[in-house]
Amino acid sequence: MIATLSIGAELMLGEIVDTNAPFIATQLYAEGYRVSRHLAVGDDEAAIAAAIRDLAASHRVIVATGGLGPTEDDVTARAAARAFGHEMVLREEVLTHIRAFAARVGRTLHPRNEQQAWLPATAELVPNPVGTAYGFRLDYGGCSLFVLPGVPDEMAAMFTATILPTLRRLLPSPPVLLTRVLKVIGLPEAEISARVFDLAGPGIEVAYCVVFPEVQLKLRATGSDRAKVEALLDDTAGRVRERLGSALFAEGEETMDTVVARLFREREMTLALAESCTGGLIAKRITDLPGSSAYFVQGVVTYANEAKERLLGVPAELLLNVGAVSREVAEAMAKGARERAGSDLGLAVTGVAGPDGGSAEKPVGTVYIALADTDGCRVERFRFGGNRDKVRIRTAVTALDWLRHRLLAR
Amino acid sequence: MIATLSIGAELMLGEIVDTNAPFIATQLYAEGYRVSRHLAVGDDEAAIAAAIRDLAASHRVIVATGGLGPTEDDVTARAAARAFGHEMVLREEVLTHIRAFAARVGRTLHPRNEQQAWLPATAELVPNPVGTAYGFRLDYGGCSLFVLPGVPDEMAAMFTATILPTLRRLLPSPPVLLTRVLKVIGLPEAEISARVFDLAGPGIEVAYCVVFPEVQLKLRATGSDRAKVEALLDDTAGRVRERLGSALFAEGEETMDTVVARLFREREMTLALAESCTGGLIAKRITDLPGSSAYFVQGVVTYANEAKERLLGVPAELLLNVGAVSREVAEAMAKGARERAGSDLGLAVTGVAGPDGGSAEKPVGTVYIALADTDGCRVERFRFGGNRDKVRIRTAVTALDWLRHRLLAR
Repeated sequence: MIATLSIGAELMLGEIVDTNAPFIATQLYAEGYRVSRHLAVGDDEAAIAAAIRDLAASHRVIVATGGLGPTEDDVTARAAARAFGHEMVLREEVLTHIRAFAARVGRTLHPRNEQQAWLPATAELVPNPVGTAYGFRLDYGGCSLFVLPGVPDEMAAMFTATILPTLRRLLPSPPVLLTRVLKVIGLPEAEISARVFDLAGPGIEVAYCVVFPEVQLKLRATGSDRAKVEALLDDTAGRVRERLGSALFAEGEETMDTVVARLFREREMTLALAESCTGGLIAKRITDLPGSSAYFVQGVVTYANEAKERLLGVPAELLLNVGAVSREVAEAMAKGARERAGSDLGLAVTGVAGPDGGSAEKPVGTVYIALADTDGCRVERFRFGGNRDKVRIRTAVTALDWLRHRLLAR
Repeated sequence: MIATLSIGAELMLGEIVDTNAPFIATQLYAEGYRVSRHLAVGDDEAAIAAAIRDLAASHRVIVATGGLGPTEDDVTARAAARAFGHEMVLREEVLTHIRAFAARVGRTLHPRNEQQAWLPATAELVPNPVGTAYGFRLDYGGCSLFVLPGVPDEMAAMFTATILPTLRRLLPSPPVLLTRVLKVIGLPEAEISARVFDLAGPGIEVAYCVVFPEVQLKLRATGSDRAKVEALLDDTAGRVRERLGSALFAEGEETMDTVVARLFREREMTLALAESCTGGLIAKRITDLPGSSAYFVQGVVTYANEAKERLLGVPAELLLNVGAVSREVAEAMAKGARERAGSDLGLAVTGVAGPDGGSAEKPVGTVYIALADTDGCRVERFRFGGNRDKVRIRTAVTALDWLRHRLLAR
């Protein structure tokens, strides 16, 4: 049994979301270990000590993060010592590391950083390749407690380099546990469930997770024989593909963005973008991926009508007659983007993201998407629900899905 | 004592981060209540029941979320009944709501949704204005358990409409507890702590939180008299402002993006953007905010050299001689953006975001930022650390901070 313990006042006050526990769970799950509890408490010595004792009573391993920094609210080391009845001592080797680290990055060491050298007396040290805070391991009864800094980069580096190899030795070999993730766009959760729920059975679970605006279908199979588990997953995934068709847009690590990127590369086609209501979001998502310069020629964010005329050649009288949010302007933007960039495809979006700017004929959420190619231009009107963020995200994902379908068609 | 309990297999496997617990904590904290534990467990009936019993032993209130959906892995209602020794019954009023809801949104009700009408016999219902899943309340011993769906929109609507008013009646009035958030850019955490740690004292805490690439300083004051608590916060915030100067860029709900937006509006100035390595990220952040069309004229994402020539008028020979990532090209981009859009300011970034494209003279993380106005153009070279994402985010935030300083100067 493995538990994570995330420590920080900000977590208790809701000021930050905890990404450390999910990271640790993901890493462990990739090795076949499941975490059974995530617990989070504030920067309070007594509360941390109580949490450690509670978890230690029913878990073989606790991976705790946070509260090892140089400031006065960092009390995790003291709390861990208190939970297991240890003394705190100044660890010379840690002090040496902190000084060497400061020297290496050319920073003068702040005296407050010396606090980070005070650790429980018998703690086994966990080196930190990225920062000043050492982690440590404390054993008590049948429980091993690992404590890491809360800074995500440092935590991740230390978990991967030291904790994971230690856990492989410490814990019994787990059964084979494999997951296949299938990502669906355009079908509601209940509909997906109705189509595939009967595929669950002995050794295989089917779960659903809404990651707006997509639904992720998780197939989780377990068993003692890896080849059989994989065969079961392959077979089940095959059936899911048949039942969901092209609504299934990606599997595993692939995302809408990476699928579109891969298809652009495979088809050796190029793209120009013209964005109005998404304001650069589509360009940002495309250029999030390294290597996007191979197919992404240029993008323009044309908020003002004058920008649509200047950068895309949309006729002023068209903007005047039918308005910027219209089938005709979307088409002119897509064609203009394509022609001016000399790209294979031109994608344009124009719409009312809100909260203002809506009207009776064009309420908030009204969006036109247009995709121009050598053969002409496809344009469609959508009415998306939700607030500004949701309208923008759904517009971007729908536009990317259009690119996916267009690239698959050739 | 209040605890949250988040339920979902995805949480245990690290596939999603939990945003429900932070939301609930934020809402409670705004009323003066502190959450003492966030616990998360998987979609397992026995594990959920055990978690409820454990938390009930030491908490007055548990707010649980997740596992009330229509699919076979939604077992929270059964687990809650089991934890407190209740029967499950079909609640007719819930069934009626589910059918009415389906009719209202014009969807045929899926038979699987009827599962959502099976709830613990004595549960007090919590209506769901947004979806099909009812929430409920169960009392046992000295503990009140509230269970809400995990879908963030539904959870939030139900928490605000029903749970919060109930808790106000249920819990003793808390002491006044107020927080002031001060956001800092360009100073490391230990340096900030060294400058302000002595401001903590009776009734006031100082905490630090890294939200890459900024550091947030939290002042938390408590007491029985609201006016005194506010005066203490005002006084302390004033001292922090003196000690941190212009590195302090925003307070409270304001962000770098909203500060820049406000300054553009106040100064009645306009902006054109030319992005290379950030690929639309700056435009996206600026247009995330409604009303940005008032000052944002246009943006171009010029990945290819040809796009820099075509859309910004950067001379081809300049690109050939000094390369796209150079002081000269950054300046030409900023000036070109400004002149072509006829805007007051022209902001340009060009750099190597990585992971590829670095060289000995221009390693990954090398970025030029240029800001053109009527008086000329400021250009600077940076060397940012971290991966592609971090380089892009730091570039965007630094560029926005340049806009802030430039707008403040007038």
